[in-house]
Amino acid sequence: MAEDRQDDPFEWIDAQRERRARAGLVRRLNPRPADSPLLDLASNDYLGLARHPEVTAAAAEAARRWGAGSTGSRLVTGTTELHAALEEELAEFCGFEAALVFSSGYAANLAAVSALSDRDALVVSDAGNHASLIDGCRLSRAEVEVVPHADPAAVRKVLDAEGHEAGGGRGRRALVVTDSVFSVDGDAAPLPALAAACRSHSAALVVDDAHGLGVLGEGGRGAVHAAGLAGAPQVVVTATLSKSLGSQGGAVLGPARVIEHLVNAARTFIFDTGLNPAAAGAALASLRLLAREPQRAARARTVATALHGRLTAAGLSAVRPDAAVVSVRAPSPEQAVQWAADCRAAGLLVGCFRPPSVPDGISRLRLTARADLTDEQIEQAVGVILETAPTA
Amino acid sequence: MAEDRQDDPFEWIDAQRERRARAGLVRRLNPRPADSPLLDLASNDYLGLARHPEVTAAAAEAARRWGAGSTGSRLVTGTTELHAALEEELAEFCGFEAALVFSSGYAANLAAVSALSDRDALVVSDAGNHASLIDGCRLSRAEVEVVPHADPAAVRKVLDAEGHEAGGGRGRRALVVTDSVFSVDGDAAPLPALAAACRSHSAALVVDDAHGLGVLGEGGRGAVHAAGLAGAPQVVVTATLSKSLGSQGGAVLGPARVIEHLVNAARTFIFDTGLNPAAAGAALASLRLLAREPQRAARARTVATALHGRLTAAGLSAVRPDAAVVSVRAPSPEQAVQWAADCRAAGLLVGCFRPPSVPDGISRLRLTARADLTDEQIEQAVGVILETAPTA
Repeated sequence: MAEDRQDDPFEWIDAQRERRARAGLVRRLNPRPADSPLLDLASNDYLGLARHPEVTAAAAEAARRWGAGSTGSRLVTGTTELHAALEEELAEFCGFEAALVFSSGYAANLAAVSALSDRDALVVSDAGNHASLIDGCRLSRAEVEVVPHADPAAVRKVLDAEGHEAGGGRGRRALVVTDSVFSVDGDAAPLPALAAACRSHSAALVVDDAHGLGVLGEGGRGAVHAAGLAGAPQVVVTATLSKSLGSQGGAVLGPARVIEHLVNAARTFIFDTGLNPAAAGAALASLRLLAREPQRAARARTVATALHGRLTAAGLSAVRPDAAVVSVRAPSPEQAVQWAADCRAAGLLVGCFRPPSVPDGISRLRLTARADLTDEQIEQAVGVILETAPTA
Repeated sequence: MAEDRQDDPFEWIDAQRERRARAGLVRRLNPRPADSPLLDLASNDYLGLARHPEVTAAAAEAARRWGAGSTGSRLVTGTTELHAALEEELAEFCGFEAALVFSSGYAANLAAVSALSDRDALVVSDAGNHASLIDGCRLSRAEVEVVPHADPAAVRKVLDAEGHEAGGGRGRRALVVTDSVFSVDGDAAPLPALAAACRSHSAALVVDDAHGLGVLGEGGRGAVHAAGLAGAPQVVVTATLSKSLGSQGGAVLGPARVIEHLVNAARTFIFDTGLNPAAAGAALASLRLLAREPQRAARARTVATALHGRLTAAGLSAVRPDAAVVSVRAPSPEQAVQWAADCRAAGLLVGCFRPPSVPDGISRLRLTARADLTDEQIEQAVGVILETAPTA
């Protein structure tokens, strides 16, 4: 038996599991029922559209009409007229020339970063960027300079050192990459300053608006639209269909030539199966619903501000929300887990972010301010969070 | 204006587009209608289940019951009891201890390779592997040795050089990575020989069974099951829900501790939104249908053999199919495109693989042998392909 163990190619997994257990960092899946009695402040369903009857009916109808799957790569049989309509309406809504839909936001980010840079390029990446942007940087093989979080001066400094100057055309191709709203703390990127730095250095700007679309900007047109950068020739936006739009999938929005380039060069577009019709249909229905009911975006922001105000007034430490994510600090990973468990026992579902999902090692409760929460539900949530807060 | 062009961060895109145009390699999207009159031999819907009424009804019902999206990471709100049921039944069907569902097969491959290796590991990768396995290798930061296609002796040589020997426990952690059926030519990997090499060198074997599940093995249990390797302690399988199962999504199957490790360590699992319920519900319905109607798998193989036999008897050059993909050589990329276009004009939809999607630079028509093709449809397809074949 001792010899068998030596031959075991996965022995190292047991050692890692023990280390995780000792550090209180084991993650387990908790399958939820269809009709949970819990009040949900954990999902990214910011506008409450995932279960909107109009949206689920569109998903069902799309599956019946177009099939359960798209049946192939978008380049072969995986592009339906439904995908084309979604891309056209999404681009128009957000103010861009063109859009391209992927099977996930993760795939969209891998595509945007890796297909717009290469071994000879420089990518300047915010230290707080999402895992999918970081993986995109790795896949690109570009030289990656990670700059301090939300620091346009640091971005300028890297571009200056590269010799990128307006009208100069010197230096390598450069790409600045950032989330618009950072998932962990819900804080916003300094988009106007980043765009100005890019413009004066002939660099492109890639913005992941996963947490901005549907929440920020006029009627939820997103953080880039709010910053007056929609349709700018050097700006590319990535978005997700799985948060405010309540479905699944991702998208890249930008100049038509950039989108055409991705069709020809992005590996996660070319070698992936197209988004399933139900998800495409649901996202399109959500988009149309949001265009008709633009107040949903403002309501999500109002709920976030209310949650933050009530919790900080009671003495908790929370970051002022720039969108619909409210991040509340916990003293330790163990206490964060206990706090979230106590909330759950009291009928409230909250997110719990621990290492390695938090770049600074600080554990948090993560609350999402759904537009469809009533004032009574906000009161209930605040009450539970305060009652269960660690005393440390 | 000249100065504006110099400031243009995407000028290089225009140059690449011109190069592609000159080489005849421009790709465009062709949105298809819901009810295409074309005979489809291009999709990966091997069992014809994507539009099966039972499968689309399950998709529709899941969207209505569970919502249009899963609303969050699988670790937060993105795991429903539907996901858990799908994982349990998929693992059982394929003969593995556990399974984990991802939003795409691409994401599953990135997860399996990158979370089971690291900077200190050695990955041995078949030269014909799918883009997603190659990207997984890149993300892993492991040392990657690319070995000649379908060559177990070459794999053994690399492992020998590493000092991996049975009972020795020497050398770095090692992972051998292969497709089970290669997408371009439809040929099968030598799985028993690869597994033996891994066993005698304490290496793990990761097999992407995207084109084997539903087609090969007893009742479509896949190529790994057919090779007698299902449930082997050193074997991990990745699969897709978007081909034979007619839906969207991917899965990793293996020992429970490997799956538990992925839950805790795989970035494309932790930081991605869970698969949308419609896709999960459709995949589960397809799986149950296949379990009930195992003859569908054999029919796909019969159709492939018939297509290959008829086309090669008429003088075309095609690889003998090991599963449901029949690959027919074309003289050049331009002629492949023209051939596919001529087929389309004659009512037949076929795939057309050109560089850079083909590792050897040889362009092909790619035909998929759907189980639900009638003998008359096979005749029709063969007729069109022969009539439109390039004369060179």
